[in-house]
Amino acid sequence: MASQRVMNFSPGPAKLPEEVLERAQKELTNYSDTGISVMEMSHRSSDFSQIMNRTESNLREIMKIPDNYKVLFLQGGGTGQMAAVPLNLIKLKSSGCADYIITGSWSAKAADEAEKYGTVNHVYPNTKVYTGVQCVSTWKLNPDASYVYYCANETVHGVEFDFVPETNGVPLVCDMSSNFMSIPVDFTKYGMVFAGAQKNIGCAGVTVVIVREDLIGQAMKECPSVLDYKAQSRASSLLNTPPCYSIYIMGLIFEWVKASGGTEAMAEKSRVKSEAIYDVIDKSNGFYVCPVAEHCRSRMNIPFRVGNAEGEDLLEKQFLEGATQRGMISLKGHRSVGGIRVSLYNAVSVQDTMHLAEYMQEFMALHQ
Amino acid sequence: MASQRVMNFSPGPAKLPEEVLERAQKELTNYSDTGISVMEMSHRSSDFSQIMNRTESNLREIMKIPDNYKVLFLQGGGTGQMAAVPLNLIKLKSSGCADYIITGSWSAKAADEAEKYGTVNHVYPNTKVYTGVQCVSTWKLNPDASYVYYCANETVHGVEFDFVPETNGVPLVCDMSSNFMSIPVDFTKYGMVFAGAQKNIGCAGVTVVIVREDLIGQAMKECPSVLDYKAQSRASSLLNTPPCYSIYIMGLIFEWVKASGGTEAMAEKSRVKSEAIYDVIDKSNGFYVCPVAEHCRSRMNIPFRVGNAEGEDLLEKQFLEGATQRGMISLKGHRSVGGIRVSLYNAVSVQDTMHLAEYMQEFMALHQ
Repeated sequence: MASQRVMNFSPGPAKLPEEVLERAQKELTNYSDTGISVMEMSHRSSDFSQIMNRTESNLREIMKIPDNYKVLFLQGGGTGQMAAVPLNLIKLKSSGCADYIITGSWSAKAADEAEKYGTVNHVYPNTKVYTGVQCVSTWKLNPDASYVYYCANETVHGVEFDFVPETNGVPLVCDMSSNFMSIPVDFTKYGMVFAGAQKNIGCAGVTVVIVREDLIGQAMKECPSVLDYKAQSRASSLLNTPPCYSIYIMGLIFEWVKASGGTEAMAEKSRVKSEAIYDVIDKSNGFYVCPVAEHCRSRMNIPFRVGNAEGEDLLEKQFLEGATQRGMISLKGHRSVGGIRVSLYNAVSVQDTMHLAEYMQEFMALHQ
Repeated sequence: MASQRVMNFSPGPAKLPEEVLERAQKELTNYSDTGISVMEMSHRSSDFSQIMNRTESNLREIMKIPDNYKVLFLQGGGTGQMAAVPLNLIKLKSSGCADYIITGSWSAKAADEAEKYGTVNHVYPNTKVYTGVQCVSTWKLNPDASYVYYCANETVHGVEFDFVPETNGVPLVCDMSSNFMSIPVDFTKYGMVFAGAQKNIGCAGVTVVIVREDLIGQAMKECPSVLDYKAQSRASSLLNTPPCYSIYIMGLIFEWVKASGGTEAMAEKSRVKSEAIYDVIDKSNGFYVCPVAEHCRSRMNIPFRVGNAEGEDLLEKQFLEGATQRGMISLKGHRSVGGIRVSLYNAVSVQDTMHLAEYMQEFMALHQ
């Protein structure tokens, strides 16, 4: 055992519920009396089929996914989907063009990737300063776009949409990688949604794709089969060997979410946790600074700087060292923005978050 | 525990060494006194970097990979690489064309996938009857091809090359998914090699790509970043979150192979195991029939039919039922060819193989 309890605020791969890890550990060498590990199972065996089916049906139940949406479990991560989305959808209309709402580095990357496959329209100018969602009245949406793309939560910059963009009938595509299953979602407003598992719903290696059936089947010729929604949908995600163990772990998480009260409970827990941290920031009289506009502050990732501009780096170094001494890890901000980042995914407990909030106050009292 | 010991002959995902599973189980909730699971680690943490580095250096050591080859750990499986290979390499020459040697369903699939990206030349006509490698004297290699592609071991049809094709300077590309690390390889003969992990070197979710440096950097514009060898190579496979846990398990397998005597020991063990099964087939007086030409019989996957044509299906059903009663699982042939298939990857013990050989003899004595 580690010498003290670790409080893991990693931006992803991230903390998993203890109960899930303990169950995975128990079952690792002998799953459900089969005598073998899930890792050793043929992906076409009846035992693994049951895992796949249960995982999908729990996902559909938890997220209330309508029947006319396909659910796929794919490889390649969110970055793989940044290519798969245009490869599958940018030819939906003859315009071959798509609208991108850029609110941080992930949506910016997605727009760059889409440039390989068609015409990308930036809904508003990309200023490369990501502190919020620009006012809807300034948006220039193209009614002929094949889809409108956005990222529900920008993990690096801590910008989270508090509304669903209105696209006037153009299919809405959303990267929900870092806030998936942390809040209820009305899927009827979306054409396609994807989420890498390693934030809220599992370990790295599997990506959930949820796509409305009528949007499937228009992939570009150049689309690799493994990323082709039609080919994968026809094969029930078994076009080739899927990432079996990552799917199994994701399935355990879904069972844990169900047992923990579903998305409503996750949303309430997220609210309590994130408010605790923002509260310390807001009452710090500028000692802690979060640059994000209040209405689109992320409940999942809270980036902030410590101290005034002078000596900031040193204070942040001290902040991180003190955190490590207390067993709080992975609080360093993304290398592109610096500072501190607190990630509060579903498996992070209210208790751990409160410990962090207390530490922030103590640190401020010492250094303000 | 399962009521009896299971002998797993799955074609993949396949048996893993007990020692590896037990170590993974022990470390699952607390890796190396970090207090967290490998699944919960940031892929940019120093702990995970150590796992990545050790895994790569062990792979290089075991397989004697020369320094001018890059090693990548990617998502998407072998089928992903069937697109990645042409996306990265088919424009190496202005011909935009590649040679494919078709010896079974996997190389046939690879050729179909490559058609999306350039001109595919079949080195000899695809008769769709896969029982061996056609005589080299009949091959029509195109000296202007960007590469020559083949599959070292056809998992479904049990056809394994016992030689490395001579391509007169054209880069040789090889799918080694199902016999990787079962035999020493001279990498200087290859331009690029890939292998999905779930046969000999781990669990599903990660694919090893080994590519000569001078072949990197000519990807087609349409290549998704996650499959782009240059982008992934520059990022040391961390362009996006890699399949961390699958990489960790693969690393444990590499340590096990090293401790077990390396590729020479694996090759000798494969010889002993496969000869034991082929010996029963060859001495069965036609009761067991393996259609593959003797010189290219696979050491990894042995497909065969049971009994004479009449009543064959019933006998095979009985064979599989008897095997299951003895704890021998996953022996059913691929759905496209029927019959029986014995898969003898590195983790399958000589003892389990001998049990199977004995059972084959008993079954024959009862039903011949």
